[in-house]
Amino acid sequence: MPNLGIDIGGTYARAAVVDDAGKVLGAGKVALHDRSPAGVVESIAKAESEAVLNAGTRDIRFCGVGVAGQLRGDTGIVAVAPNLGWREVPFGDLLSARLGHAVRVVNDLRVAAWGEYRVGAGRGAEDVLMVAVGSGVGSAAISRGELVLGHDGVAGEVGHIKVVPGGRRCGCGELGCLEAYCSGHNLIAQMKEAIFSGLYRTTLGDRVGGDLSKLNPLVLETAAADGDALAVEIHERAGALLSVAIANYVTILNPARLILGGGVLLNCPGLFKRVVQGVETHALRLSARGMTVHMATLGDDSGIIGAALMANPALAATLLDPPAAPPMKAQGAG
Amino acid sequence: MPNLGIDIGGTYARAAVVDDAGKVLGAGKVALHDRSPAGVVESIAKAESEAVLNAGTRDIRFCGVGVAGQLRGDTGIVAVAPNLGWREVPFGDLLSARLGHAVRVVNDLRVAAWGEYRVGAGRGAEDVLMVAVGSGVGSAAISRGELVLGHDGVAGEVGHIKVVPGGRRCGCGELGCLEAYCSGHNLIAQMKEAIFSGLYRTTLGDRVGGDLSKLNPLVLETAAADGDALAVEIHERAGALLSVAIANYVTILNPARLILGGGVLLNCPGLFKRVVQGVETHALRLSARGMTVHMATLGDDSGIIGAALMANPALAATLLDPPAAPPMKAQGAG
Repeated sequence: MPNLGIDIGGTYARAAVVDDAGKVLGAGKVALHDRSPAGVVESIAKAESEAVLNAGTRDIRFCGVGVAGQLRGDTGIVAVAPNLGWREVPFGDLLSARLGHAVRVVNDLRVAAWGEYRVGAGRGAEDVLMVAVGSGVGSAAISRGELVLGHDGVAGEVGHIKVVPGGRRCGCGELGCLEAYCSGHNLIAQMKEAIFSGLYRTTLGDRVGGDLSKLNPLVLETAAADGDALAVEIHERAGALLSVAIANYVTILNPARLILGGGVLLNCPGLFKRVVQGVETHALRLSARGMTVHMATLGDDSGIIGAALMANPALAATLLDPPAAPPMKAQGAG
Repeated sequence: MPNLGIDIGGTYARAAVVDDAGKVLGAGKVALHDRSPAGVVESIAKAESEAVLNAGTRDIRFCGVGVAGQLRGDTGIVAVAPNLGWREVPFGDLLSARLGHAVRVVNDLRVAAWGEYRVGAGRGAEDVLMVAVGSGVGSAAISRGELVLGHDGVAGEVGHIKVVPGGRRCGCGELGCLEAYCSGHNLIAQMKEAIFSGLYRTTLGDRVGGDLSKLNPLVLETAAADGDALAVEIHERAGALLSVAIANYVTILNPARLILGGGVLLNCPGLFKRVVQGVETHALRLSARGMTVHMATLGDDSGIIGAALMANPALAATLLDPPAAPPMKAQGAG
């Protein structure tokens, strides 16, 4: 019996009916107009109906949901989801009440990494590191087939390692984070700030017909390739910082597979290549020996596929234990 | 029945009879004059006899050995041990032939971390990060009660993350590693290089009566505290680099306990304090929430105690599976 995977992205709620081998049997996609918890729940309900209709089956065994945010262990509570503007939302309960079945809420990068690990670029390996550079920068690591969760369930925050102590302010409020130089959002912000400063002669504005809302990482990459000095500076710095950060991550974890994903890396081949080469240069040779580097092969589907697979206890191993939470039933049942 | 733990340090082979609660029942210590595999085996044999004599029991159940080097999974083969000058030594076989019982050979930092995790500063936590700054810089991480091993068994090489790309050459042959600025060996080397360069006015030489072989990290720390500009520069850089590196490690792993050990940190309270404060400053607040920082409480004994506890399969969990090795028996037995 297949499972249902749900992914809440920046713009869409997506759902898919997925079999145990990770094959998508039917999918649905609904725009997220209203980002309130109730609004998102409605969009998901529509996406689920669409997916079920397209798959031609109502027989769903488990349902998993990936959310870009920090979760309170396995309680379904979203502690913080900056993109959605949520704090302490009992999202699992709201969603399962609306859908009429249980749901498992998991961090979006972990479901993506789990999808890649089970049926994508990580298949067959037991030690996998996935780093995604998209609107944010995040990661998830799998050690001997188990996700590295951290005591509070928030391991993997590589976007917030300090790469320029005292440097550029990050969306998290701290200074000099990797994400502050490399995420899609921050690449765009750095272009705009430089243009508005009036200190640079650059072609970036002209490339989007003067409409700076159209700036994106690919415009940056193209301008850098054409030799635009400002674009080169921002692009090179992002590439260099990502390279060393990911190389150091490899040196510490010694993974068998390094999987690179996220919209920025998947859509900017120049940056992707730079990072692959940079990791090779900077990772300790001993630690990177035998490691292979891959682009995320499931692309946009890694989240929905991973969420579906992770919802199935038989495929998700110990992840199902609520991290750092006391055994509440045992206490109550005495 | 107690276990036997063995630790091969820079100067001594140490052995101890240790009960399952981590209590040392008797210990022995023999100087390492001959660092050849045969010489080390002999020193260990003497240290074991001494420990057994002191403990007043010959009933040893399991025996574990910590070695500063990279091992080939759980085969007992030491791939590289720079301090001993070994490459591809079948140390487990040599040692067990001499001692007349089985031994388990494990990386020294992993046994130290395991000792701290079971009966030291990490007791009661399931997610523990130990970083040691001694003659080298190393680490071991425990995630949900399991050591993070890496696919090739060499996870934790934090001493060789790149902190100054293209910087100072490290003993590993690569450039700009953390260890190249912060290990005891490299702190001393940096003092000597600066003195020999003749470019600095410094009190360091006078502090050791002109005998530069007597320079050590504590002399550096004392001189820095007295305002010696060269000492301040070397000491501050080491503190700053260690702080950011360990803070970033915390941001990635979200441990419940951070344990700092190793001769340099244990003997230089100024550097220790600087690192504790620096980790607090630079770690992502979310990742460090609820984390406590500790000095290694077992001190010099963490290695022998951890080695003894790790030798016991009931206390060592999945660590006993040879990492990244094919299931050889299954293949042979068909």
